[in-house]
Amino acid sequence: MRETAVLTIQCPDQPGIVAKISTWVFEHQANITRSDQYSTDPIKGQFFMRLEFCFDSDAYTKQQLEKDFKTLADPMHCQWEIYYKSEKLRFAILVSQHDHCLLDLLYHWHAEEIAGEITAVISNHPDCERLADQHQLLFYHLPISKNTKQQQEQELFSLVDDVSDFLVLARYMQILTPEFLALYGRDIINIHHSFLPSFIGAEPYHQAHERGVKLIGATAHYVTQQLDEGPIIEQSVESVSHHDDVNSLIRKGKHIEKHTLVKAVIAHCEHRVMRLDNKTIVFE
Amino acid sequence: MRETAVLTIQCPDQPGIVAKISTWVFEHQANITRSDQYSTDPIKGQFFMRLEFCFDSDAYTKQQLEKDFKTLADPMHCQWEIYYKSEKLRFAILVSQHDHCLLDLLYHWHAEEIAGEITAVISNHPDCERLADQHQLLFYHLPISKNTKQQQEQELFSLVDDVSDFLVLARYMQILTPEFLALYGRDIINIHHSFLPSFIGAEPYHQAHERGVKLIGATAHYVTQQLDEGPIIEQSVESVSHHDDVNSLIRKGKHIEKHTLVKAVIAHCEHRVMRLDNKTIVFE
Amino acid sequence: MRETAVLTIQCPDQPGIVAKISTWVFEHQANITRSDQYSTDPIKGQFFMRLEFCFDSDAYTKQQLEKDFKTLADPMHCQWEIYYKSEKLRFAILVSQHDHCLLDLLYHWHAEEIAGEITAVISNHPDCERLADQHQLLFYHLPISKNTKQQQEQELFSLVDDVSDFLVLARYMQILTPEFLALYGRDIINIHHSFLPSFIGAEPYHQAHERGVKLIGATAHYVTQQLDEGPIIEQSVESVSHHDDVNSLIRKGKHIEKHTLVKAVIAHCEHRVMRLDNKTIVFE
Amino acid sequence: MRETAVLTIQCPDQPGIVAKISTWVFEHQANITRSDQYSTDPIKGQFFMRLEFCFDSDAYTKQQLEKDFKTLADPMHCQWEIYYKSEKLRFAILVSQHDHCLLDLLYHWHAEEIAGEITAVISNHPDCERLADQHQLLFYHLPISKNTKQQQEQELFSLVDDVSDFLVLARYMQILTPEFLALYGRDIINIHHSFLPSFIGAEPYHQAHERGVKLIGATAHYVTQQLDEGPIIEQSVESVSHHDDVNSLIRKGKHIEKHTLVKAVIAHCEHRVMRLDNKTIVFE
Repeated sequence: MRETAVLTIQCPDQPGIVAKISTWVFEHQANITRSDQYSTDPIKGQFFMRLEFCFDSDAYTKQQLEKDFKTLADPMHCQWEIYYKSEKLRFAILVSQHDHCLLDLLYHWHAEEIAGEITAVISNHPDCERLADQHQLLFYHLPISKNTKQQQEQELFSLVDDVSDFLVLARYMQILTPEFLALYGRDIINIHHSFLPSFIGAEPYHQAHERGVKLIGATAHYVTQQLDEGPIIEQSVESVSHHDDVNSLIRKGKHIEKHTLVKAVIAHCEHRVMRLDNKTIVFE
Repeated sequence: MRETAVLTIQCPDQPGIVAKISTWVFEHQANITRSDQYSTDPIKGQFFMRLEFCFDSDAYTKQQLEKDFKTLADPMHCQWEIYYKSEKLRFAILVSQHDHCLLDLLYHWHAEEIAGEITAVISNHPDCERLADQHQLLFYHLPISKNTKQQQEQELFSLVDDVSDFLVLARYMQILTPEFLALYGRDIINIHHSFLPSFIGAEPYHQAHERGVKLIGATAHYVTQQLDEGPIIEQSVESVSHHDDVNSLIRKGKHIEKHTLVKAVIAHCEHRVMRLDNKTIVFE
Repeated sequence: MRETAVLTIQCPDQPGIVAKISTWVFEHQANITRSDQYSTDPIKGQFFMRLEFCFDSDAYTKQQLEKDFKTLADPMHCQWEIYYKSEKLRFAILVSQHDHCLLDLLYHWHAEEIAGEITAVISNHPDCERLADQHQLLFYHLPISKNTKQQQEQELFSLVDDVSDFLVLARYMQILTPEFLALYGRDIINIHHSFLPSFIGAEPYHQAHERGVKLIGATAHYVTQQLDEGPIIEQSVESVSHHDDVNSLIRKGKHIEKHTLVKAVIAHCEHRVMRLDNKTIVFE
Repeated sequence: MRETAVLTIQCPDQPGIVAKISTWVFEHQANITRSDQYSTDPIKGQFFMRLEFCFDSDAYTKQQLEKDFKTLADPMHCQWEIYYKSEKLRFAILVSQHDHCLLDLLYHWHAEEIAGEITAVISNHPDCERLADQHQLLFYHLPISKNTKQQQEQELFSLVDDVSDFLVLARYMQILTPEFLALYGRDIINIHHSFLPSFIGAEPYHQAHERGVKLIGATAHYVTQQLDEGPIIEQSVESVSHHDDVNSLIRKGKHIEKHTLVKAVIAHCEHRVMRLDNKTIVFE
């Protein structure tokens, strides 16, 4: 049976990498359908590659494939991963009260444009339950208060630990603690409603209005311990003018928030996002 | 003779303003060719208006017109100004070594798309002299060092005081001192090569590269005592990716820097920019 | 009681219009909260104005207001209309199978960002019934075949005649006949999935792919007898590349289609769109 | 000595291509610094690759390199080319009276951002001579009239034949005849001042104004026998409104025309543009 896989590789740049890898693919009777690569400047000297290929899963089991590739990759000091199209990444969506990002994620997921599996919708508010229901998705209401934050995050962890490869914060208005981030240890994608690094923190549209900017933005990024400072995946902007008050900034911003987040989630699920330090390489 | 004028008004919002002003215009046999207005929220309660009109300068001298309007405006506590199309604003351009913004300003000025008069090109470097010469413009080379900054700004002031209504910093890489700003006391338009308030200060493209943004920006703003914090007139962005190193950010940024600055200068010369606190109202 | 109204005026340009109208507003103790105007070139000589104002509906009934304004407007040969914020425009949405535009309209309507009343969702396919149900909206399934087009349009007319001030074609894949257009006689807003006038007619994404464009577009316009040639209200574009096949153009296009249509419907409901020949004036 | 080269390949898709090519590169002690590839859908089955690599020109002469690669490429039915960074493409610029595109090309060329050699500026008008002079470029004035078109094109050919690898039409307002195109037989890049395929032919801004579009565009494309129908390299748009008359469309359009053309010329000179039928693959 033909199966499609994605191989992602990151390693120190060195002569012959592509030759070795593409020869390996060829020798496994696999067919490259898409290939992207990127080398940093010679000083950092890092090499990145993403290969999409079809292989015959009757001729090679996944175990075999991975064992074989390990033999090739180890001497080159590669970090690598093979993902199979049949095994979609699973993610839970965290949301508070604003549901536009959730709604757009659900739409594109339902239209099969997101190559991932939504396993739950979790909120500190009850508002989005109906939306989750309409898509036959599990909904968990985990209210939070100053005193219950620690406990809420434990419940959250127990809900997502087994069923998610990453999390999406679709306008989740709580800051996840360093403890939670360390415990969960997987990718978390957030949408920040400003053009980072402008307007870090709370109420970015109020900040934008106060500053009198002529463009507002939205930024999808990976969450790190530093609030709003993680690697940026995708950014968009929209024109505004003196006519816009805070409310109309909020209204106009929705459109770029949801679009930016959806693009980032699509890219992540297709393993098109790789990381170097605090930056991303996004293969279009 | 028909002459074209622009009337700009800013005053506390109050019933009947537009009726009074437009009746005044009508009674002076003037013809409104364009009118824009804007009211802030009721709390701030400020009213802004820009009127373009043709009047018969044989029937009304400018003095007469202004005296008449003063009678109308005083009871309404208006700040106002009448500009005549035949009397263009004069400006000097300050530049350092990067000449792309200067070149684009000169092009659009030469094509008569900027309704202002360039009276001098001034630089702390000699590089742009030839460009000024090609446009028959006075060029002044005012080198600067740590010890001569004060003296250089005095020379600068003496060069621009009599011959400029405003200044344009077209990638002038010196920070004007608060003393100079106070002394000059007129508008100064700067182009900052980032999407403010991101990357304030020196080397914004290095900062942008370090942060890994996916869009770079340019911001034209009025200079105030607070570095890079003055009222924003115009902003633009351009997409970038992991392929872009600092040099290619610099290269790609030129295009938006020059375009953003030219748009701001055009708007300023046409009296389409008004100010409220640290923000601008730009009538398109 | 304070009520908010919008006055739209179109008339031959002439001296004193603004003075007369604003004096009239002032004399009716009304307060202008927003005013936009536009004069064409002197040859066409048309004047357009949109005034938002608050008035005391206890002091002036709507009938009184309109009778008074008629007295002012008739000698100036004005076409004019007064709309009251409390009386929203009613519209029906026509859709076929693609539901992304419908979904986004419903979202923004539910968020009270569209100042109109959706009175029905009508489709030639049954697919969108559930979506209409979720918003407690009437759904009518009017299937169509070559032989039943005339009859279907009669049913359509009887469904919308009494309950709509305009129609929105949210990816309705049927061409309305000239007979229906004449019979209905009100505004109809369509979203065409290309950057008009490129790719008129069927399958614009296939046409775009065939031509190898580097940007795809969407256009919201009023429907006229000439297919895809009516006055354009709003247009947007999105970058594409050689990587995009027809399917990915379709996927990427959704985002701009829905956004462009929603913006046009919002503007229409706020009476910000006026028309001159085959063009629109859209007050932002 | 280390030399940088670009290898472009186009051939029927087949297993093992990348392995063979990258192994070949490795065996020649060359170092890949950038690699891009693209496969069309399986039906068309075309494979495209662009490799940037450094090699030791003392160990391998160019002749040797090309002879060796031919041995590899012939059995795979490749069309291929090796370009050396030290041997820049040469081009002549044709222009009429509007000089903004020429000016921007000269600026970016002078700033060494265009990896090509400008060998002449040729015009059917005398206006741009001074600009060419300022850059120490040969300028040829080839006036044209209905009766002299054939002769003018012969002169043109004799001027460019020996000294150009391609031509750039930087707002050259003459249509080159099929005879000239056939005779010249090399690439010609044109800037069309509309968002193709909208507004083909003469006076696109007049057409755009007449149609009432809300965005104007510019398109850089290769010239073919079909006017304005050649493969598109780059497109951009700019927002416009009802305030814009034809003159302001022309003014606003300049900015995107020049930027779009410069981007296309940069890409072409870096051998990042490949062609399939009437489309381009542009490696960013």
